[in-house]
Amino acid sequence: MLTYSFETIGSCSMYEHLYRCIQEDIRSGRLKANEKLPSKRSFARHLGVSVITVENAYAQLLAEGYIYSLPKRGFFVEALPPAPSVQAPCESAAPAEPTQHWNADFVTNQIPPENFPFSTWTKLLRNVLSQEGKNLMQAPSAQGCRELQSAIAHHLYAFRGMQVQPEQIVIGAGTEYLCGLLVQLLGRDAVYAVEEPCYQKPAKIYETCGAACVSIPMDKDGVRLDALEASGADILHLSPSHHFPTGIVMPVSRRLQLLHWCAQKQGRYILEDDYDCEFRTNGKPIPTLQSIDTTGRVIYINTFSKTLASTMRISYMVLPMPLVDAFRDKLGFYACTVSTFEQLALAEFIQGGYFEKHLNRMRNHYRTQKSAILTQLSESAIAPKISVLMEKEGLHFLLKVHAPVSDEALLRCAADREVRISCVSQYYRGTPSCPRTIVVNYAGLSTEHREEAIALLIDSIAAAIAQA
Amino acid sequence: MLTYSFETIGSCSMYEHLYRCIQEDIRSGRLKANEKLPSKRSFARHLGVSVITVENAYAQLLAEGYIYSLPKRGFFVEALPPAPSVQAPCESAAPAEPTQHWNADFVTNQIPPENFPFSTWTKLLRNVLSQEGKNLMQAPSAQGCRELQSAIAHHLYAFRGMQVQPEQIVIGAGTEYLCGLLVQLLGRDAVYAVEEPCYQKPAKIYETCGAACVSIPMDKDGVRLDALEASGADILHLSPSHHFPTGIVMPVSRRLQLLHWCAQKQGRYILEDDYDCEFRTNGKPIPTLQSIDTTGRVIYINTFSKTLASTMRISYMVLPMPLVDAFRDKLGFYACTVSTFEQLALAEFIQGGYFEKHLNRMRNHYRTQKSAILTQLSESAIAPKISVLMEKEGLHFLLKVHAPVSDEALLRCAADREVRISCVSQYYRGTPSCPRTIVVNYAGLSTEHREEAIALLIDSIAAAIAQA
Repeated sequence: MLTYSFETIGSCSMYEHLYRCIQEDIRSGRLKANEKLPSKRSFARHLGVSVITVENAYAQLLAEGYIYSLPKRGFFVEALPPAPSVQAPCESAAPAEPTQHWNADFVTNQIPPENFPFSTWTKLLRNVLSQEGKNLMQAPSAQGCRELQSAIAHHLYAFRGMQVQPEQIVIGAGTEYLCGLLVQLLGRDAVYAVEEPCYQKPAKIYETCGAACVSIPMDKDGVRLDALEASGADILHLSPSHHFPTGIVMPVSRRLQLLHWCAQKQGRYILEDDYDCEFRTNGKPIPTLQSIDTTGRVIYINTFSKTLASTMRISYMVLPMPLVDAFRDKLGFYACTVSTFEQLALAEFIQGGYFEKHLNRMRNHYRTQKSAILTQLSESAIAPKISVLMEKEGLHFLLKVHAPVSDEALLRCAADREVRISCVSQYYRGTPSCPRTIVVNYAGLSTEHREEAIALLIDSIAAAIAQA
Repeated sequence: MLTYSFETIGSCSMYEHLYRCIQEDIRSGRLKANEKLPSKRSFARHLGVSVITVENAYAQLLAEGYIYSLPKRGFFVEALPPAPSVQAPCESAAPAEPTQHWNADFVTNQIPPENFPFSTWTKLLRNVLSQEGKNLMQAPSAQGCRELQSAIAHHLYAFRGMQVQPEQIVIGAGTEYLCGLLVQLLGRDAVYAVEEPCYQKPAKIYETCGAACVSIPMDKDGVRLDALEASGADILHLSPSHHFPTGIVMPVSRRLQLLHWCAQKQGRYILEDDYDCEFRTNGKPIPTLQSIDTTGRVIYINTFSKTLASTMRISYMVLPMPLVDAFRDKLGFYACTVSTFEQLALAEFIQGGYFEKHLNRMRNHYRTQKSAILTQLSESAIAPKISVLMEKEGLHFLLKVHAPVSDEALLRCAADREVRISCVSQYYRGTPSCPRTIVVNYAGLSTEHREEAIALLIDSIAAAIAQA
């Protein structure tokens, strides 16, 4: 009869050890297909264990299909095909790139921890967890929690003058996710268009999701209408209130022309990506394209990445009414991708007035930062060799270098000092243009390190100029 | 000269009111294209306001492109195209369907609030918020936070005996999201296959993402290999440890055959959806296909929806090593869709041993629930007319009705009592089969309402039988 030692049992239970021994013998072929296993009682007596132990081991082997039972005849070894002999390449994947350390980072959108309202957020989360138990466990619609939809609608009215119904709002785990969702809604057969130059991710997402994506060149007012007409585009992704990286604010005449373009053909839409509208530091925010749209062809997208935390992954879009029904029909089966815990906390954050306070505080913070940065630049040794451009809106401006340096030299001199910068030329998908123009994104600078970071930036530029 | 009243100013600031008045006159055509606006100084004197007010109003109109300035000549009205006259259909979208009230719900995966560890979770979140400030604001890789990857790898080893490197793990906002990501990784040209019958969402997602999806009929051991071979499928999505809705546990012989199928052709993969493996109430969990795979062709997917909360939207997949590099290449540009706040709290929940305790508590809870439900059914008046099937694994079992009733009648009689049930026949994408078999998913039953819910279920079935 089969004999197994129980001396090497380790931390296993008796039945688990027995199960493993038998399984190993079946896998290795020591126990042959259709061979009869000992009866539970005699096997237990033979091994000196309880019948329950054998019973449990047999039950597990039966459940996994290693053995089969025949009524009144007992247990038999299942006939198993051999394991495939193809071996997977066993080398491990390259370890993930270690996070690069930067002495100064003018590219990141990560918000310094000091700018996140930790104590308020903790309080709101605790309230939500203690008071909203039932609501927290209840799946919201594909579009998100009603509470957050309403809070966003109110915010858009108060802050952006937009008249929006909560039902028009779709909440999702980041703008990237929403772009992917839009491809599913508007179709992979549509041609998507982005600005040239532009923030590169949307184009990458449209293509990764299987749609064609074209680039539309810009003039001083934004995308060129003749190029747009010629491109065959159906869907135009743009940031009219503050273009990245050029900083262009699209004037109302170009906006109206784009709405005409939309109205000319069924299936044309504009995706208005209003990613940093909250941070206009002079005057009122620029009104949205969505709010002057009478054609129902503008999809408005915004995010809490810049205003709260990029790592919380909460964005939303406002669909024109006719698309709301299409969304429910086609994509209503999805679960909303944002945790209800954070949706309800954010709803309370907005509705309790905390968001407005936070925005005001952040606007002041950024105003102070910008003014200090501009002063430091203007008082620096390289001041005669640089111009600051497009510094009025949002959280980045441009630095034009007046010297015969290449963008490669600027990037290299910065990298040598562990300073992370980007140049406008890097945001072209086609032939790069606009050389010697550094994008200074100061969203990620902490107050404490600002002066040192700008000194490093100045030093990098000076080094590049000296080498030229 | 232009004259505006400041009596109707409301809550606007002076400059904002003036800006609005001029903007309205430009839009309506009362101010003509290229018409000169009054000089700031004389306009201010004329209106009885300060020069700053006019200056700010002009600055805003300039920024938005309603006016332009010519050096030393002043401000002029911009020539604007008329707004498109096409009006969007103005009816609002149908209001979202109100959430249906159920007296008993045997379909939902929503966990009753009493089963969520609120106090532990609150404590962990508070710790994370107070201690991890910097880490919380730092974007993790596309695959997720390292802390959570490691915690999951440990959990899979301890609980599932799976040897997995943290780098193989991709964290995402729900299994639905991960399925969409897999289509982007493995291609829309691949043919995806699901089991027939099956949980319908994955098939819907594959199709919505633009891939072909076929259904593979099953026999008592799971998907039929001959049908799979004939289908032209490349990617097979299945739940070998506990199939939904049939409850089938795939025996090891069929598993090995499927691995052979994978190994036969480049580009074939199995997506092992292990959605409720944690809730085997008898014996050890069934080992995963992933753990006997030597070919590197099994992608393992699991979720915290069933074990923690479906509304938190945290799932993960384990990629075979060769796919890890492909993922980074192709999809590494994406931001991970789960909030770092919840990723770090969950990592702590797992690593601090809270998850294991929670699972044990839940397993006991479900064991008690199931046994009470089965007793109640067996002691009911309809006991002779029903059989309970596949009740050993997971959180659902089947109820076969032995009477000439239609599934429609069963569903209708349940709906009349506001009892939500589903029948196995509803999970077929092609011709329905397996009639008179109710899926009893008891995951959403609270202890308090269990008895009443089962009584309603019994009553519904009795009514359907009486009508037959």
